[in-house]
Amino acid sequence: MARAPTRIAILAGGSGTRFWPAGRASKPKQLLPLDGDDQRPLLRATVDRLKPLSKYPPIVVAPKNLKRALRKLLPELPEEAFLWEPEARNTCAAVALAAHAAKADSGNGPLIVVPADQHVAPLKAYRAALRAMADRARNFSGIVTLGLKPTHPATGYGYLERGVRLSSSKAGPIHRVVRFVEKPSRARAGRMLSRGGYLWNGGTFAFRPSVFLDALDQHQSDLAWPLARACRRMGQRGFQQSLARAYSTVPSISVDYAVMEKARAVEVLSTKIEWDDLGSWDAVARHRTADENGNRLRGDVTAQDVRDCLVDVEDGHVALLGVKNLVVVRRGNTVLVAKRGKGESVRQLVERLKEEGREDLLR
Amino acid sequence: MARAPTRIAILAGGSGTRFWPAGRASKPKQLLPLDGDDQRPLLRATVDRLKPLSKYPPIVVAPKNLKRALRKLLPELPEEAFLWEPEARNTCAAVALAAHAAKADSGNGPLIVVPADQHVAPLKAYRAALRAMADRARNFSGIVTLGLKPTHPATGYGYLERGVRLSSSKAGPIHRVVRFVEKPSRARAGRMLSRGGYLWNGGTFAFRPSVFLDALDQHQSDLAWPLARACRRMGQRGFQQSLARAYSTVPSISVDYAVMEKARAVEVLSTKIEWDDLGSWDAVARHRTADENGNRLRGDVTAQDVRDCLVDVEDGHVALLGVKNLVVVRRGNTVLVAKRGKGESVRQLVERLKEEGREDLLR
Repeated sequence: MARAPTRIAILAGGSGTRFWPAGRASKPKQLLPLDGDDQRPLLRATVDRLKPLSKYPPIVVAPKNLKRALRKLLPELPEEAFLWEPEARNTCAAVALAAHAAKADSGNGPLIVVPADQHVAPLKAYRAALRAMADRARNFSGIVTLGLKPTHPATGYGYLERGVRLSSSKAGPIHRVVRFVEKPSRARAGRMLSRGGYLWNGGTFAFRPSVFLDALDQHQSDLAWPLARACRRMGQRGFQQSLARAYSTVPSISVDYAVMEKARAVEVLSTKIEWDDLGSWDAVARHRTADENGNRLRGDVTAQDVRDCLVDVEDGHVALLGVKNLVVVRRGNTVLVAKRGKGESVRQLVERLKEEGREDLLR
Repeated sequence: MARAPTRIAILAGGSGTRFWPAGRASKPKQLLPLDGDDQRPLLRATVDRLKPLSKYPPIVVAPKNLKRALRKLLPELPEEAFLWEPEARNTCAAVALAAHAAKADSGNGPLIVVPADQHVAPLKAYRAALRAMADRARNFSGIVTLGLKPTHPATGYGYLERGVRLSSSKAGPIHRVVRFVEKPSRARAGRMLSRGGYLWNGGTFAFRPSVFLDALDQHQSDLAWPLARACRRMGQRGFQQSLARAYSTVPSISVDYAVMEKARAVEVLSTKIEWDDLGSWDAVARHRTADENGNRLRGDVTAQDVRDCLVDVEDGHVALLGVKNLVVVRRGNTVLVAKRGKGESVRQLVERLKEEGREDLLR
């Protein structure tokens, strides 16, 4: 019997709230070109980047309302490559769905689960790390996560504390995971950095589908069972209706919280590659090439006596005069003018617009 | 013989470049509501403010291309109240035109010449000053100017040095003018302020038309003669054509430079009223009422964690996040984001857009 192949699953959910006004309900983060000077939307770049890792098409788990946009963005993928989520239910349901699909489609080979919205470099080292994770997952009844060596006391990322060293690969050492740490305070992040032994949680996992689904059964049965029942009809008529019924009942919970933090056999592959989850306009600014004044300008912009600004303009013109350290984004009917470093607060701004009934600015 | 009446002339030329993108060729400064919380365009407010000073309609000297906009803005004025300039020729030609019109229309009573774009307060003291200027001009073969007591070492205004005291009125003392000082450096402005005896030049004059026209003959004959010839046809068919011919030959020069600085008999009435020539967005910000965060917001604006900003929005929405000390103006297809205090530089920005052929942003 042939060895079951390695498969890739890409989590292409998310709302893009923090990238408003470029990110909107109809155009979430994964559809935006936010990775450095790359003009490709994040999901397009993610699919391209992972292609060498599997001969099979990736499994793309995405919101149903993006069907049209994603078929257009990824025309080479067969319809069966997509798993359309009836509604947003955080990452645990999406990963479970991908695990069921991989198992049904190509057996119990390792599944690498990757978010659609990351910056990684260099590509070669990144792919080597994922391959090493898959190799380990093939021979281990547990979950392997990707751990990134922290370069600064980031407060926007989750962390992993690593324990005993288990093995080594060319891509990096593999340790047991002692503990998951949610986004820390600045002080705690500083302590973790100076103490060592902590890694950024890259939100990237490798496991055999049966291993993940067993852990899910054990730790989050209210999600595992309804989805397992619906997935029995995968590939058949009525699957979408069954899935919609299941999704309407399952909890909205992250895979970290539901499974990773509770599962006993979790390991981490440590790597030193450059990594960023592109969580806000501030992160986007870091990866775009600056001109001689420190500005990153895209679109129809006139800048005079301007320094260290990120400007991203569609649908009109923006003129800047004598300003510095701003993020200016123009889309549709609106313009955001924010101080750099306030990227995380865009979320609250959008919440406020929602409360004020400004659907005209959010669609 | 009845005494010749006092007349008012309002200079309603100017391009509004420094108020881009609200100010454009089709909507210069005098058509914009820039005076504090007053929602009236500056010219409308100026006409209203001066009404009590003369039973005659004011003479409005304005660019021909604004004919439609001004007839709509000032529907109560008869067509004869307007003098349409065929092209922009600075203030000297405009004042000469007004002097000819006043003389032809109602004789040689005092003419008060006022710019269309000022902030003054309180109104009662302002009107008293203009009345006192007219009274003096009636009995004096010279020109009376308005001098404002400086409150700070402004570099954006011209100054007058006053000499011997000649008389007094309830509205303030009248002195001989020793010298006109063009917009000074910060250091020179400081010295003038501390030495005393200097006033801001309010750009407001009173004279009998014959007195001004004589001085013009003497000091700027290349402007005086062509205009005098054209104005002989005032009120007749063919006047506009004659005027266009005259305007095509006369120099573009300010009345200060051509006449005031050279005329021998120039006096100044000193007053302490609040005065501002509203020369830039920074000046506009000073007169609008701020909210509890120091912001002046007009139009569809969402501001979160924002301080000391002037925001003026038409044609869309603007969201501000975590910024301070900005001027943000949205009009038509563009948005200006400038640091407060950089208002004077808007002019250079507009020059650059012109050079780049961006007529789409300037019309």
